[in-house]
Amino acid sequence: MASRRPTPLSGFPELLPGQRIVEAQVIRTLSETFELHGFAPLETRAVEPLDQLLRKGETSKEVYVLRRLQAEGDEDAGLGLHFDLTVPFARYVLENAGKLEFPFRRYQVQKVWRGERPQEGRFREFTQADIDVVGRDTLPFHHDVEVARVMVDALRRLEFLPPLRLQVNNRKLIQGFYSGLGADDVDEVMRVVDKLDKVSTDEVRRMLVDEAGLDDKQAELCLRLAAISSSDLAFVDDVRALGVEHPLLEEGLTELAAVVEGCAPLVDDRVRIVADLTIARGLDYYTGTVFETRLEGYEWLGSICSGGRYDALASDGKATYPGVGISLGLSRLLVPLFQRGVLTADRSVPSAVLVALPDEDSRAASDAVAQRLRARGIATEVAAAPQKYGKQIRYAERRGIPFVWFPAGDDGTHEVKDIRSGDQQPADPETWSPPAEDLRPTMVRQEET
Amino acid sequence: MASRRPTPLSGFPELLPGQRIVEAQVIRTLSETFELHGFAPLETRAVEPLDQLLRKGETSKEVYVLRRLQAEGDEDAGLGLHFDLTVPFARYVLENAGKLEFPFRRYQVQKVWRGERPQEGRFREFTQADIDVVGRDTLPFHHDVEVARVMVDALRRLEFLPPLRLQVNNRKLIQGFYSGLGADDVDEVMRVVDKLDKVSTDEVRRMLVDEAGLDDKQAELCLRLAAISSSDLAFVDDVRALGVEHPLLEEGLTELAAVVEGCAPLVDDRVRIVADLTIARGLDYYTGTVFETRLEGYEWLGSICSGGRYDALASDGKATYPGVGISLGLSRLLVPLFQRGVLTADRSVPSAVLVALPDEDSRAASDAVAQRLRARGIATEVAAAPQKYGKQIRYAERRGIPFVWFPAGDDGTHEVKDIRSGDQQPADPETWSPPAEDLRPTMVRQEET
Repeated sequence: MASRRPTPLSGFPELLPGQRIVEAQVIRTLSETFELHGFAPLETRAVEPLDQLLRKGETSKEVYVLRRLQAEGDEDAGLGLHFDLTVPFARYVLENAGKLEFPFRRYQVQKVWRGERPQEGRFREFTQADIDVVGRDTLPFHHDVEVARVMVDALRRLEFLPPLRLQVNNRKLIQGFYSGLGADDVDEVMRVVDKLDKVSTDEVRRMLVDEAGLDDKQAELCLRLAAISSSDLAFVDDVRALGVEHPLLEEGLTELAAVVEGCAPLVDDRVRIVADLTIARGLDYYTGTVFETRLEGYEWLGSICSGGRYDALASDGKATYPGVGISLGLSRLLVPLFQRGVLTADRSVPSAVLVALPDEDSRAASDAVAQRLRARGIATEVAAAPQKYGKQIRYAERRGIPFVWFPAGDDGTHEVKDIRSGDQQPADPETWSPPAEDLRPTMVRQEET
Repeated sequence: MASRRPTPLSGFPELLPGQRIVEAQVIRTLSETFELHGFAPLETRAVEPLDQLLRKGETSKEVYVLRRLQAEGDEDAGLGLHFDLTVPFARYVLENAGKLEFPFRRYQVQKVWRGERPQEGRFREFTQADIDVVGRDTLPFHHDVEVARVMVDALRRLEFLPPLRLQVNNRKLIQGFYSGLGADDVDEVMRVVDKLDKVSTDEVRRMLVDEAGLDDKQAELCLRLAAISSSDLAFVDDVRALGVEHPLLEEGLTELAAVVEGCAPLVDDRVRIVADLTIARGLDYYTGTVFETRLEGYEWLGSICSGGRYDALASDGKATYPGVGISLGLSRLLVPLFQRGVLTADRSVPSAVLVALPDEDSRAASDAVAQRLRARGIATEVAAAPQKYGKQIRYAERRGIPFVWFPAGDDGTHEVKDIRSGDQQPADPETWSPPAEDLRPTMVRQEET
């Protein structure tokens, strides 16, 4: 089997056990929260027909194409790895529409692949966690509020992450505003304003006039709209103060206010929600609510959790399937924190207890103690070898296992030692439990060094 | 986005929500059990360098090669999708050896890909769940017993599966036996005996003489050895009764007896362990204990859970990494049961409760009830539309949601209805819980129709 010392592949990050324990815990917390809200777990295959993957020309350069090594000619040409979870989900909904109940809520945590040039926070293989609600023909607006609430509820349970800011906007609001001030090419205005995070305000102002055909006053109003942001409903009056009127603008204001208000009971100091009128999301299929999310101190990562409302996720000629969803970039969020040593687990194994081994003949007795602890949900391993107890304790220390159990000797009394404090007490394998906070690995966040 | 009605891809099975709920539950139970035994969760990237994947020539035809659609020349040639979890794990151990603590226990649940011709129970994309213990330079035998116990402990918790039979053998036992009876080419004898599940006994007898160079008496002894099987230690006397002696045979007998005895406290009517002296496992790297597993009534699936001891999982010139592991073919086990309608969940959503919606203005009140139930771990969704209550109850029925909650009207009393029995009672959202068996979807096994 493998025999040389291999080196990592750029763009394909892998985690050490302590880091993977964090990632697995994050996925478990997300999944449990999504299920509490009635979202069903779903997985799609990793491959899609190339023609599906290439419908948006811009992504063609990113697709990994598959070929069987021994394939003759192009007998299995035409398959590629998915680059997101939305395209396969849209295909799945169409393929299984007759067997699904709508509105259909699903979450999906899977790897995706993009042949991009790797850089920090951008990978060729990475994990996404998506939630979507999809309707048949119609999907009431309140589901926009729902997916925002569900994602906020999930993110706030990840208490070991740095603070997060969920930024919300509404395409109806900005498109209605641009129409209301008399722009001829609303899409072009939006495209230009979307550049605000890349080029200067003065440059955007120039492009609004030169490329989007606005006059100076119109351009100024667009920039003032984009500057509005509030964590409460203050943005509504701020927009009205600009004096632009349009039915679509009103609709967008009402919807955006409902999302901010709907999330208010769930947000706290760590997970905030902000109406941010700059956000537009480049992708052209969003039609109402749009989301982006920044990680405090890591704004250079860009948005780590994005999504919105799309009026046509899929269509099969007979029915159209509107949806609203958010996609959390799990690898983009976690891997930079791992690489900078900011986030880790306090142990590299799930075990809370190491059962010591007095001698090899006692293995069955030590195994029996371990099995009694496991039966009560306590992750336990048995020492690999009957070394001196000092060595067995160091074995536990190196893995971060907090407790070492010494099986009963001739006097029939078991003892358990907290190797952090050195405290050692008699204990009964039928009743002893570690403190709740020691039962599972604890996620630890340190300041960046 | 997607717009035609797509059709399934042969060899890439996908699950309906109720089936995926079963698969997710199986993965959760397996993961929890593996962690109780101190196995750390691990994931490796989906791709490996082709030269690593092709080291065993026999698998070359199965590998999917990757190419970026816009790659020029062969700039990213040389990557393929992994076809199992052992090759990537061996590479991971070598790559990270300096950062791992040995013995290193890990479990890994991931998709793998093989370009084989699809048939029932054989897929091009499928999920495996592997456990392995790996040592540096040495790995004591007791870990063979450990991985058998861990897998039995995990499988017996999947109570909704058909009965399973874990078959164990030991390569030292059979190789020692062949040496002891004077075979010149032990490997060739093993290769021929391994055909017993495909060709007749008489044909194997002929091949043992013609191809492996045995005389009639030696061939007969080989066949009698292969016929031995017992769920207790009876096999030891049965082997001794054949009168063959060899130190390696003795070692194998002792080890096999230890595995059978070590698992005895865990097995029951549903998960049995059998010493079965036919089992050899074709792969040449096994050196001691070998495992296979049959699903009762689905023997045609072949082994759904296999593994064994390998003295060199990997080697980097400085150190050798021996290991012992078992791989559960999750898709091979579950997909045929889904396709035959034998296994499903009693609901297609995680929700235990649907909160009814008297009218659209009451949505905030219904959401608040739902959030109070979720805060106590009860998966809850709110009705999508304020239809007549009869329609809302049918909405719950179609998804298999057992309870419908009617929020308090003017009298301040909430009520909850078990829609299976029709029983409706007053309830307090701060204290009411469904019966424990209704909290999560239940896995249902039906006889094959």
